[in-house]
Amino acid sequence: MTTFPLEPGSTIGILGGGQLGRMLALAAARLGFDVAILDPEPGCPAARVARLAIAAVYDDAKALKALAEASDVITFEFENVPARAVERLLKLGAEVAPNARALAVAQDRVEEKTFLNQAGAPTVAFAAADDVESLLKAVETIGTPCLIKTRRDGYDGKGQAWVEIPSGATAAFKTLGSKPMIVEAPAAFRRELSVICARGRSGEIALYPLGENHHEGGILRRTIAPAEVAAATRDQAERIAARILGGLDYVGVLGVELFELETGELLVNEIAPRVHNSGHWTCDGCEVDQFEQQIRAVAGWPLGPTHALAHTEMINLIGDDMAEWNKLIADPGARLWFYGKREARAGRKMGHVNRLGPLKR
Amino acid sequence: MTTFPLEPGSTIGILGGGQLGRMLALAAARLGFDVAILDPEPGCPAARVARLAIAAVYDDAKALKALAEASDVITFEFENVPARAVERLLKLGAEVAPNARALAVAQDRVEEKTFLNQAGAPTVAFAAADDVESLLKAVETIGTPCLIKTRRDGYDGKGQAWVEIPSGATAAFKTLGSKPMIVEAPAAFRRELSVICARGRSGEIALYPLGENHHEGGILRRTIAPAEVAAATRDQAERIAARILGGLDYVGVLGVELFELETGELLVNEIAPRVHNSGHWTCDGCEVDQFEQQIRAVAGWPLGPTHALAHTEMINLIGDDMAEWNKLIADPGARLWFYGKREARAGRKMGHVNRLGPLKR
Repeated sequence: MTTFPLEPGSTIGILGGGQLGRMLALAAARLGFDVAILDPEPGCPAARVARLAIAAVYDDAKALKALAEASDVITFEFENVPARAVERLLKLGAEVAPNARALAVAQDRVEEKTFLNQAGAPTVAFAAADDVESLLKAVETIGTPCLIKTRRDGYDGKGQAWVEIPSGATAAFKTLGSKPMIVEAPAAFRRELSVICARGRSGEIALYPLGENHHEGGILRRTIAPAEVAAATRDQAERIAARILGGLDYVGVLGVELFELETGELLVNEIAPRVHNSGHWTCDGCEVDQFEQQIRAVAGWPLGPTHALAHTEMINLIGDDMAEWNKLIADPGARLWFYGKREARAGRKMGHVNRLGPLKR
Repeated sequence: MTTFPLEPGSTIGILGGGQLGRMLALAAARLGFDVAILDPEPGCPAARVARLAIAAVYDDAKALKALAEASDVITFEFENVPARAVERLLKLGAEVAPNARALAVAQDRVEEKTFLNQAGAPTVAFAAADDVESLLKAVETIGTPCLIKTRRDGYDGKGQAWVEIPSGATAAFKTLGSKPMIVEAPAAFRRELSVICARGRSGEIALYPLGENHHEGGILRRTIAPAEVAAATRDQAERIAARILGGLDYVGVLGVELFELETGELLVNEIAPRVHNSGHWTCDGCEVDQFEQQIRAVAGWPLGPTHALAHTEMINLIGDDMAEWNKLIADPGARLWFYGKREARAGRKMGHVNRLGPLKR
C-alpha cells in the first residue's frame, strides 16, 4: 500500500526511458526520490540517471513484476504503453498514474475526439473508418479536402495523409497500412497553441501559460511562451483543460495541443497524457517545470506554481542539429538540455535549447 | 587523450557521492554527459543518479583504475580526497580538475593561508604549531584570545577551539588530538560573506554575486544572495577571487569564504576547491548554477552567465529539519532540493530550500 503524499526516498517507476523519462528522473532526484526505468533499450537516456534500469519489452511479465516491486508509484513517458502492461501492473497492486482510461483515450484518435466532444472540448468534425467502405462513407460525410490518420500509433506527423478528392481515399488507406482510420475535417487555424496542465491527487488543477508552437516536417521545432493570446482565448483554454482533466479523473501532467481559429476560438487537436515537448520551455522559464509537476502530481504532493519567470523560446535540436553543439555551448543565452542519445538519426530529438528574455506585460 | 571541449555523451568521473556529487551528476546529465561515481558508500546519493557507481575507498587502486577507464575527465566533490588517489589517477593518464596543487593547498590550513597571503589575498594573522612547544610560541606571537585549529581535516566547525589565555593552549592541543595545528588571530568581522567563482580551461573567470552567510553551531544555515555590499567590497572580492584562481592555475568552481570587517574590507577565511554550500542559491537564482558551471569548466566548455535572476534565500535542511518535508512540499514559494539520504543524523545536511524574490536594485 502506497501512502500519499509519497515520502522523499521513495521510488518512482517510469515506463519509457527516452528524453522525457530522463528529465522526469532528474526532477524526481531533485525532490529526493529514486527512479526505476523500464525500457526495451539497455542504456537508454533515462536508464543512465536511474537507480534501477530494467531492459525489457513493456509487456514482459517478469520485468513488470520487478518494476512494481521496486516502485511506490509508476508513471510513463509516452502514451503508447500497451494497455495490458498497465493492467498487469494494476493486478500486481501497483499505483499507476495517469490512469488506464487516460491512456486508452489517448491511444485511439476516435476515442480521443469522442471523449473530448463529450467533455465539452471542441474538435474538428471527424468520423471513424475501419475499412474502405466505411472510409468512403466517412469522406463523403466530412467532405474534401480532409485528413486521414491511423486511429492508433501515429506521432510527429507519421501515419497521416491528406485526401484532396474522394477518389484518393482508397489509395491513402492502403498507403497508411489498411488499418482502422479516422477521417478529420481540416481546421482553418491561424496558429497552433498548447497548454500544459496538471491535476493532483486531491483534484487541484494547475495550468502553465499557453505556448505558441511551430512545426517543421510534422515535428515540433519551436515553442514561444507565454504566447500572446486574447483573454477570451486564455479563458477558453483554461475551461478546456479543466474539462479534460476532470473528465478523465486525471492525475499528472497533460499536454493539450490546440488550433487557434481566425476568430480566436480554440479546437483541441490532440491530447498527450504525459509531459509534452511543447512544455520544455518550463525547464528554465518557470520555478517548477512540467517534469517536477508530474512527479509532484503522481507522488500526491501539492502542485507547484506555474507562472512564467521569463519570456522563453524553446528550440528543439533534431538530428544533425547536435553537430552544432560546439556553437551552442558558447552561446551565453542558450540554456542547454542535451539528451545523451548516442546516435543522431534524421528526425530524432537530440536536445533542446531555451532562451530567456524579459516577460512581456 | 581527452579532447576539450568535451563532447556531450562523454563521461565525467566524480570522487565523492554525497549531495554535491549528486547535484553535479544532475547538472552533467542536463548537458548530455554520463557520470561515474567513486564513493565508499554503496547507494550513496550520487550513485543513484549515475551511469556507473564504484563503491570503494578513495585510494583503492582497482577502483581508481576503473574510474579512470570510464571517465573522460575526473573531478571531486570534497577537498579531502587523498593526495595519493589523485596522483594515481594522473599516473593512469586521467585528466583531473581542479588540479593537485589546489587540493594540497585546501587540505592544509597553513599552506592555504600561506598561499593566500602570497597571492595577495589577506587573511588573519596565523602561525603553524606542530607540537606543544611551537604552539606556546605561536600563541605568544598571535596573542590571546586566539583560535587553534587542526591543520587538516576540519569542517563545519569541527577540529577547532578557542584559547582565551596562553595557559589554556596545552589542554586545547590535547583535546584536538595532539596533531599539527594552526593558530589564528580572531577577526573582528561584522558579516560572513562568500563568493563562488570559476575558472575555465582557457583561463576565463566568472564570479557569482556575493552571498551573505549565517551559521548555527558551526554549520551553514542560511545564505542570502546577492548580498548587499559596497562597491569597493565587491571589487575587493573580485580581485581576491581572480588572484586565487590565477595563482592556482585553477579549473573549476571554487568557494571563497570571507570575513567582512567593520571597515568593509575583506579577509579570506578559507577556500574550498569545489562547489560550495553557500552557492546552492544559484540552483534556482541563476540561469547557470554552480554545478553546471563546474561541469562546464572541467569539460573545457565556455563558462556560463552568473548574474542573479532573483533575490534568493537558501536555507539548509539539517538533521531533523527533514521531518518537516510535509510542510515544505506545500509551500509554493519553496524550491526544494532533497538529497535522498536515508538517515537523518544530527548535523547532517539533508537538503536545502531556495526562496526567490524580486532583485533589489
